[in-house]
Amino acid sequence: MRLGILTGGGDAPGLNAVIRAVVRAAMRTYGWPAVLGIPEGFKGLVERIDPIELTPYTTRGLINEGGTILHTTNRANPFQYPVGDDQYADCSDTAVARIAELGIDALVVLGGDGSLSIAHRLAEKGVTVIGTPKTIDNDIPGTELCFGHMTAVSTATDALDRLHTTAESHHRIMVVELMGRYAGWITLRAGIAGAADAILIPELPFDADSLCEQVKERAREGATFSIIAVAEGAKPKGGDVSVLQEGSGVYQPQLGGIGTQVAEKLRGVTRLETRVTVLGHVQRGGSPVAQDRLLATQYGVSAVDALARGEHSCMVAYNRERIGTVPLEQVAGGFRPVPLDHPLLEAARQVGTLMAE
Amino acid sequence: MRLGILTGGGDAPGLNAVIRAVVRAAMRTYGWPAVLGIPEGFKGLVERIDPIELTPYTTRGLINEGGTILHTTNRANPFQYPVGDDQYADCSDTAVARIAELGIDALVVLGGDGSLSIAHRLAEKGVTVIGTPKTIDNDIPGTELCFGHMTAVSTATDALDRLHTTAESHHRIMVVELMGRYAGWITLRAGIAGAADAILIPELPFDADSLCEQVKERAREGATFSIIAVAEGAKPKGGDVSVLQEGSGVYQPQLGGIGTQVAEKLRGVTRLETRVTVLGHVQRGGSPVAQDRLLATQYGVSAVDALARGEHSCMVAYNRERIGTVPLEQVAGGFRPVPLDHPLLEAARQVGTLMAE
Amino acid sequence: MRLGILTGGGDAPGLNAVIRAVVRAAMRTYGWPAVLGIPEGFKGLVERIDPIELTPYTTRGLINEGGTILHTTNRANPFQYPVGDDQYADCSDTAVARIAELGIDALVVLGGDGSLSIAHRLAEKGVTVIGTPKTIDNDIPGTELCFGHMTAVSTATDALDRLHTTAESHHRIMVVELMGRYAGWITLRAGIAGAADAILIPELPFDADSLCEQVKERAREGATFSIIAVAEGAKPKGGDVSVLQEGSGVYQPQLGGIGTQVAEKLRGVTRLETRVTVLGHVQRGGSPVAQDRLLATQYGVSAVDALARGEHSCMVAYNRERIGTVPLEQVAGGFRPVPLDHPLLEAARQVGTLMAE
Amino acid sequence: MRLGILTGGGDAPGLNAVIRAVVRAAMRTYGWPAVLGIPEGFKGLVERIDPIELTPYTTRGLINEGGTILHTTNRANPFQYPVGDDQYADCSDTAVARIAELGIDALVVLGGDGSLSIAHRLAEKGVTVIGTPKTIDNDIPGTELCFGHMTAVSTATDALDRLHTTAESHHRIMVVELMGRYAGWITLRAGIAGAADAILIPELPFDADSLCEQVKERAREGATFSIIAVAEGAKPKGGDVSVLQEGSGVYQPQLGGIGTQVAEKLRGVTRLETRVTVLGHVQRGGSPVAQDRLLATQYGVSAVDALARGEHSCMVAYNRERIGTVPLEQVAGGFRPVPLDHPLLEAARQVGTLMAE
Repeated sequence: MRLGILTGGGDAPGLNAVIRAVVRAAMRTYGWPAVLGIPEGFKGLVERIDPIELTPYTTRGLINEGGTILHTTNRANPFQYPVGDDQYADCSDTAVARIAELGIDALVVLGGDGSLSIAHRLAEKGVTVIGTPKTIDNDIPGTELCFGHMTAVSTATDALDRLHTTAESHHRIMVVELMGRYAGWITLRAGIAGAADAILIPELPFDADSLCEQVKERAREGATFSIIAVAEGAKPKGGDVSVLQEGSGVYQPQLGGIGTQVAEKLRGVTRLETRVTVLGHVQRGGSPVAQDRLLATQYGVSAVDALARGEHSCMVAYNRERIGTVPLEQVAGGFRPVPLDHPLLEAARQVGTLMAE
Repeated sequence: MRLGILTGGGDAPGLNAVIRAVVRAAMRTYGWPAVLGIPEGFKGLVERIDPIELTPYTTRGLINEGGTILHTTNRANPFQYPVGDDQYADCSDTAVARIAELGIDALVVLGGDGSLSIAHRLAEKGVTVIGTPKTIDNDIPGTELCFGHMTAVSTATDALDRLHTTAESHHRIMVVELMGRYAGWITLRAGIAGAADAILIPELPFDADSLCEQVKERAREGATFSIIAVAEGAKPKGGDVSVLQEGSGVYQPQLGGIGTQVAEKLRGVTRLETRVTVLGHVQRGGSPVAQDRLLATQYGVSAVDALARGEHSCMVAYNRERIGTVPLEQVAGGFRPVPLDHPLLEAARQVGTLMAE
Repeated sequence: MRLGILTGGGDAPGLNAVIRAVVRAAMRTYGWPAVLGIPEGFKGLVERIDPIELTPYTTRGLINEGGTILHTTNRANPFQYPVGDDQYADCSDTAVARIAELGIDALVVLGGDGSLSIAHRLAEKGVTVIGTPKTIDNDIPGTELCFGHMTAVSTATDALDRLHTTAESHHRIMVVELMGRYAGWITLRAGIAGAADAILIPELPFDADSLCEQVKERAREGATFSIIAVAEGAKPKGGDVSVLQEGSGVYQPQLGGIGTQVAEKLRGVTRLETRVTVLGHVQRGGSPVAQDRLLATQYGVSAVDALARGEHSCMVAYNRERIGTVPLEQVAGGFRPVPLDHPLLEAARQVGTLMAE
Repeated sequence: MRLGILTGGGDAPGLNAVIRAVVRAAMRTYGWPAVLGIPEGFKGLVERIDPIELTPYTTRGLINEGGTILHTTNRANPFQYPVGDDQYADCSDTAVARIAELGIDALVVLGGDGSLSIAHRLAEKGVTVIGTPKTIDNDIPGTELCFGHMTAVSTATDALDRLHTTAESHHRIMVVELMGRYAGWITLRAGIAGAADAILIPELPFDADSLCEQVKERAREGATFSIIAVAEGAKPKGGDVSVLQEGSGVYQPQLGGIGTQVAEKLRGVTRLETRVTVLGHVQRGGSPVAQDRLLATQYGVSAVDALARGEHSCMVAYNRERIGTVPLEQVAGGFRPVPLDHPLLEAARQVGTLMAE
């Protein structure tokens, strides 16, 4: 069997570790002749960019490196491919033809929601394809854990640790905006691990007045500081951010994301010194933590195992401590928010973390 | 309900995080009046050391601190308590009486195999007791994950990363001896995550000649370095370490642990420069990684939940991504090695890691 | 001798390490009877907050903790003390009286520009006072290095490392805004250490068009990514930020700090994907790096030594690898930017870092 | 000018950062045509191994990588070159001829004591050569700081931090053996930064009985733990290790290094639980800390500057916060221990660190 492999979408720690595991399992364990790395994600197929011959030797030392040696490009959907200023065309036949040209028997796609949906449509066109779930947001359906997520949680937790001593010794409110446009997994996990006093996530619209009241209550009880972890997709109840303006002295609607807006609200109402950090892409990079290296390695090996067994049109997935597969059609277009009865939410409440519900 | 809490046995990152979670869940969520910290583990009961009143306030900021604010002492088994030089007595009645004296309705024991066995015997004497599984070795039966384990794995992985560049650029064999007297979990996980070329664990006795042959084979193929991760409890086939002496120029039976012995053997046979690191207690300390903080928090909260439901004589446990409980009698005296069909072992083999079986 | 000690101004890693060193040197080495910790900075003097008796025992374990156990409050200048809404009074006599009341023979002030200026004025009123230079910005005159600075540099460098792999594998421009309102030390050091492609600091107003041109030139040469490190106080040539608007498609003057504005400009002109990170207070917190612990310890010890020798009205300072003292009057109100002929600037240019001068 | 560059001796974090800086300064700033990387250190010259053409492009991303892309081999002294089993010959003429063959106008040697002595002898044979001081031990004469040293200090400090909580909460004596066969710089710096209770370095032979007495005294005062940082070259007074045997119950002369011996002595005399960690090569690897990246970059740039000015037969050096050069003849064969009046030694004593002198 001749494999192709590509990485799609945003960055996540562990991409290189999956590539390394796929190459080793395919060539060493199964003795397959070649693994071709497609540069630049799906663009590399459509634009016929020369592939890279991957071997156990050339992928040595990759397990702890962030990024992807294959590089990638967002917005390179073969089914809606950019062909000019704001013009798009269906180039999926080109992609399919290119796969055949290269003699690729099966394609391994490392990607998130978008790339896995493309993989699913390529499968419908007859391509033998298998996916691995990559996103720091951890919101791909069908799997409890995506590689990259725990590294992002670790980076965010480290930032919360750093803010903690300053907040406490300098009586500050520290608001930190974390990634998660639609799902609050990073904020929930890092919020608990970093001992945030309040956690605001998209799944639980927050009551801004109640948040302010609780922070003031903390101050009255002697805790003259608060750490607020806010997912970038968090929303006030009713979804109307203008409620955040009331009581805020210096509110500016243009002033950036939800983190900044929550900070302005808190500053206006509580009169406490308030600071904002927007961690941004720092959460996407860096060497993967041990857990992500293990998960990425297992995903890579399991994808090759599945292909060897004749399975395809599926995504490798981690559920209840075991690696298995789920059909791509159950993944494509789907989304996995934090369930409102998730044990971590319950644990957060029990240790006293505010949700301002 | 009035809780007592104590920590027993060796150190593991996350003890303080569990204490914090128990105190918060008990006093904030359930409104229980008090949590008494028993200093020095079971010794604190037998010797009637003054307990510490724990509150959400006094346990603030503990989630990321290593060690235990309650301190502890090894070898303070109330059922076989040291009362003089090499003399022991059964002081368990004193311990039980002390629990009553302090008005403790339920005792939370944070411990490993030894402490949980003591907890089980106290339960048989009528004490309401619940355990949480603490060991960096991860070898407590009934749970897939003990808090502290992933921090130890992370510390060991970091050491392997550091050794890697030196090994590769300086053509060295680097042997690193990791903790794990009876179980190879740390070595298996850190070995995969740190890209060790060979992993030697107690569950799989190794063939020393085969190991040397494979390292020489690597050198012939151009990989003029090797990283060997050895659990302190790893053993050569047949269990007779004297087989390690053959072929070794400078073998000294007194020369420390298995790591040193494997290094001497490799140096003698391969004639490559070889270095040993014995990480030791560095693996037991430090701030817990995010995953351990989450697990410790969930264990603490779940222990209180279980007591509130009327459950006791059990240990909180993590299985298939969910927290539950298992009876202490299934835990006491037991042991959980790496199963020979564990997916991680299979993944290790598929990425080319030698087991020298 | 009876010492008082207080911490003023913003947070910097190493405050606790200085406190520990002062207490140990004073009480152990010189056998002085007491070190009183004044809580909340100068506010603690004016408002007669109960001091904390510090001892070698109570300051144990502090060397690696961020923040300050004495807490502090910004804007608590005794010479212009807030006494009502926007009303201020000179309460310096109260502060001086309080020092006498407490029997304090000499006061150690850990602070930055503001706090050291206050210290200087207290000295003029007859208080025996000595300062230690604390600021992550490293812009206090009279010393080459302030404690806390290298930890901030380390945190910023780590962020740049994380952004690097993403930038490279995903063809992104990453702009990271670092602290430094008036001086570019953090950005200069972290920019070099983190291999930023361009460094923008307050001392060297930048030419926005030249910056864009150079980034486009990099892209033409095949380097389809760039990392731009911007100090929060960086300014375009002429100081008029409106020059940043030209060529920018989506420029919004209200859109946050200079980092965001530079990013918008680059996005508009180069048409490359651009992301911003504002690290913020993450740079002020956390455990001090080894170098800061050493410096903080030496500052604490040297302050006590100086007092023992009869020196005061001065600040301990680090120059040419030696600790000495400089008179407070040379420090107060002063400021230390990056000299335009500093060897680090020259080194940055030689390794190809753009300054867009 | 055509440069050659090679790395010699043991590993130290920052080698790659120096290589990157040399290449960039030579080719970008001075427009020199080529920098040839000589693989395997001096062996690459003697055995005419093909050199590697280095460019700013091929050295991209190297600033934060441990090891050396040029690889190296210990014991490849051209003046005493191994030519058979235990046979050596002077191959220095071959090395000199090879330098001419490759058209190398000047050779940059990144090395420690051994490699710089070889560089000095090559200079005497007419080779234009310049050195940069590389050693984690920091014991090269003529410079206050070698690159790699502060990363080793940082790694050792992190280990001490991890041991601290365990020591304190479990009442242990923790002995950690750090690198430094002849000089105690790592142990001194990491010992202070990691708050070791005692520091044993080669420059100050220790009194074992006094050490034991002081540890017992600490225990009597309530500090039931101690952290002892021991340089591998530390020696008891008189230099006779047999004094360590007295009072030790289980002393075994074969039992490894000085760390283990000190631990046995302490265990025997104090009857406290004692553990040893031998950090070993972990101290030599990993990504350089920010300070080492800055120093390495400055050294690389300054070496090229010096050659451009016509300076050679010297080593770049860091003294009193400035980079300069010192003649190789002042470096070769020399050695720089911790001076007994060094301010860090004094600071250590003042914060209560035992030297057991």
